Amino acid sequence: MQRILIKGCSILTMKTGEKPFVGDILLAGQRIARIAPSIDETADQILDGKGMLAMPGLINAHNHASMSLLRAFSDDLKLMDWLDKKMLPAEARMTKEDIYWGTMLGSAEMIASGTTAFADMYVHMDAVAEAILDSGMRASLTRGLVFLEDDGGRRMTEAMDLIDNYSGAGDGRITTMLGPHAPYTCPPEPLAKVVQLARERRIPIHIHLAETREEIENIKTKYNQTPTEYLHEIGLFQDNHVLLAHAVHLTSSDIQLLHGMKGGVSHNPVSNLKLACGIAPVTEMIANGITVGLGTDGAGSATTLDMFAEIKAATWLQKLGHGDPTVLPAEQALRMATIESAKLLGIDHEVGTLEAGKRADLILLDLNKPHLQPIHDLHALAAYSVTGADVDTTIVNGQILMRHRQLLTMSWEEVHTQSAKRAARLVEGL
Amino acid sequence: MQRILIKGCSILTMKTGEKPFVGDILLAGQRIARIAPSIDETADQILDGKGMLAMPGLINAHNHASMSLLRAFSDDLKLMDWLDKKMLPAEARMTKEDIYWGTMLGSAEMIASGTTAFADMYVHMDAVAEAILDSGMRASLTRGLVFLEDDGGRRMTEAMDLIDNYSGAGDGRITTMLGPHAPYTCPPEPLAKVVQLARERRIPIHIHLAETREEIENIKTKYNQTPTEYLHEIGLFQDNHVLLAHAVHLTSSDIQLLHGMKGGVSHNPVSNLKLACGIAPVTEMIANGITVGLGTDGAGSATTLDMFAEIKAATWLQKLGHGDPTVLPAEQALRMATIESAKLLGIDHEVGTLEAGKRADLILLDLNKPHLQPIHDLHALAAYSVTGADVDTTIVNGQILMRHRQLLTMSWEEVHTQSAKRAARLVEGL
Repeated sequence: MQRILIKGCSILTMKTGEKPFVGDILLAGQRIARIAPSIDETADQILDGKGMLAMPGLINAHNHASMSLLRAFSDDLKLMDWLDKKMLPAEARMTKEDIYWGTMLGSAEMIASGTTAFADMYVHMDAVAEAILDSGMRASLTRGLVFLEDDGGRRMTEAMDLIDNYSGAGDGRITTMLGPHAPYTCPPEPLAKVVQLARERRIPIHIHLAETREEIENIKTKYNQTPTEYLHEIGLFQDNHVLLAHAVHLTSSDIQLLHGMKGGVSHNPVSNLKLACGIAPVTEMIANGITVGLGTDGAGSATTLDMFAEIKAATWLQKLGHGDPTVLPAEQALRMATIESAKLLGIDHEVGTLEAGKRADLILLDLNKPHLQPIHDLHALAAYSVTGADVDTTIVNGQILMRHRQLLTMSWEEVHTQSAKRAARLVEGL
Repeated sequence: MQRILIKGCSILTMKTGEKPFVGDILLAGQRIARIAPSIDETADQILDGKGMLAMPGLINAHNHASMSLLRAFSDDLKLMDWLDKKMLPAEARMTKEDIYWGTMLGSAEMIASGTTAFADMYVHMDAVAEAILDSGMRASLTRGLVFLEDDGGRRMTEAMDLIDNYSGAGDGRITTMLGPHAPYTCPPEPLAKVVQLARERRIPIHIHLAETREEIENIKTKYNQTPTEYLHEIGLFQDNHVLLAHAVHLTSSDIQLLHGMKGGVSHNPVSNLKLACGIAPVTEMIANGITVGLGTDGAGSATTLDMFAEIKAATWLQKLGHGDPTVLPAEQALRMATIESAKLLGIDHEVGTLEAGKRADLILLDLNKPHLQPIHDLHALAAYSVTGADVDTTIVNGQILMRHRQLLTMSWEEVHTQSAKRAARLVEGL
């Protein structure tokens, strides 16, 4: 069993109430064996942690990784122009191979910016799964299900194939969910069937909710309900573990309906800002006991998958919305990007904090930089000044995926070349 | 005369309406000699621009650089707790040497994140000036003037000494302004005198305006006016070139009062978000012909001095505030951080765009990174995905201040050591 010893780093375990301290971290195989002020044991590899900050790898609770091929392709547009004239036509051209390389590009960015796990909903998810097996990341994968043009039968078959073929693959790195896309793309009858199936087979659900004002109007017109009421009536929040993406437009009574739900909400502030959706009621949801994690959404809207940007944007928006700089402080925002997101993916017993026995998913941040000196408060520094580029080393399941900013599980040159070639074809003439 | 030739880079000149193109840039001495698709001339130094994006250096229109010593020291606090319990007591301990090293730390961060010029208001400005001469940056320096505890005579003397001793120093890199601090720290009589002096000697003015709701209340109580009305009545906007910092809380008629002013507004969105001040009416000001540039404010509130973070925050906030993703598009946000800020500093004839004859203040961004591929739209990529860490090379006045991320005009080890030691003393017991 491969043993890695990280010596003399500052450590943010992200366990509730634990103060930062300087110490050593011993990894044994896929797991964290020990964390202590000083560990004098033999190891196959010793990483010098001097001037480094160790923390749990960030967990991106809502992504469409292969949309990285469409980064900075259609910005500053009205939502429907963005979707109808740019995203949908380009996505319609995507082959399985495009999805594989798009996911590799997204994974390269995530590894390089300190994200170790993510939740993804897209198409050709077997190609996404193969990219995850190759990249070494951890992911919760979901085939998106829409039931507008047809009965969704083919998609449903692909969704179940993904679950049957890839759940637990890569030494448990891959988990799966069922993905009814959104209230406005899933009518009551097929949605109820998916919810029932998920409940019977104990499969978590990943679904978009209340992202835009247009969606609120749409569901109001169709069902005379809020999107949350619509999902509640179908029974989604009874027994199912549900990962809700966005939840920007919730009424107070919507928040009450979510009280006590299993799973919770992925807040995606950068995408919400870029698309001018609004400020999600994060503080109110947390006050009502709802778990709120952080995600980026796809690079098609967010442009980057840097979770450190989401941490900043999340705390900024709550401070702004409440007119109160004490709201959503640094440590809480960091918890949202780690252990709270882990809860949404249903993997908080394995990752999300640094503690002995958990999977070895962690990052080392290089603090020897002008914007990270002097050091007064490591939580504030990590939340408000660190960016993804400060990540020096990324480890998932005990495997080093990036060391001194060199990607170790893929050829960046190959990913770069493939991405450029494929992206050019996808957008030609659009 | 030293000649530097940059070969084969993508170029954003930031001249209005000019599309990105690939080409060469020839620098001769302190100035840009030529920009063209291909330049075959001899040079003392050739920089390979392949895979790089050249653009004007960013200009930070409102900063307190030495506050970098207080980065991440007092976050998530109420404004008055932040100021009274943390910032003011720590600042009261600052010696001239602290200010020098704090400015060197801030300069290190700015150079490393692509900022080539900034406007600064603080104390011990001769120490700030010496740091600027050493770092090689360009700056507009202002001794802050408050007239609450006394008649401000000593401060006024220091302000005029700064102007007399340092204007034009460093081959013109240093310019100066007069800095009456804010409406709430400058009563009518001394403020009117400063404005009159500035007008007679044609010295620009740098002043804070309407940053917080508390300021609006304060001035309303004192003078039954808005802060903008107060400054207008004193005659600030008649002939003076004025750099207004913040301008978050303006009424429609305030904006009318600013119409036609010389100078304009430094928008500082990250600081405004961190301190929960609100969203400045940037779109409305621009629609009324007011020049709006970008600044960070001090690292004491903003935590970092990365102008690329301000570019993102600026466009996000306008999109959010207007519920419209088309507002403040990428190219306009980039212009705010370059040529518009240059106008605020009164140096737009010299810097802010890349064109022959202007001073050679420019940066090279390394695009060979996962979050910057593929390349569809360079403006969108630069505004929405680039961070300061992507800056490879920073050039000011024809001098290379950073190459391949190595700082060339200072010893980072020395700045690091000095900052850590001094910062620890400043905050001891607070």
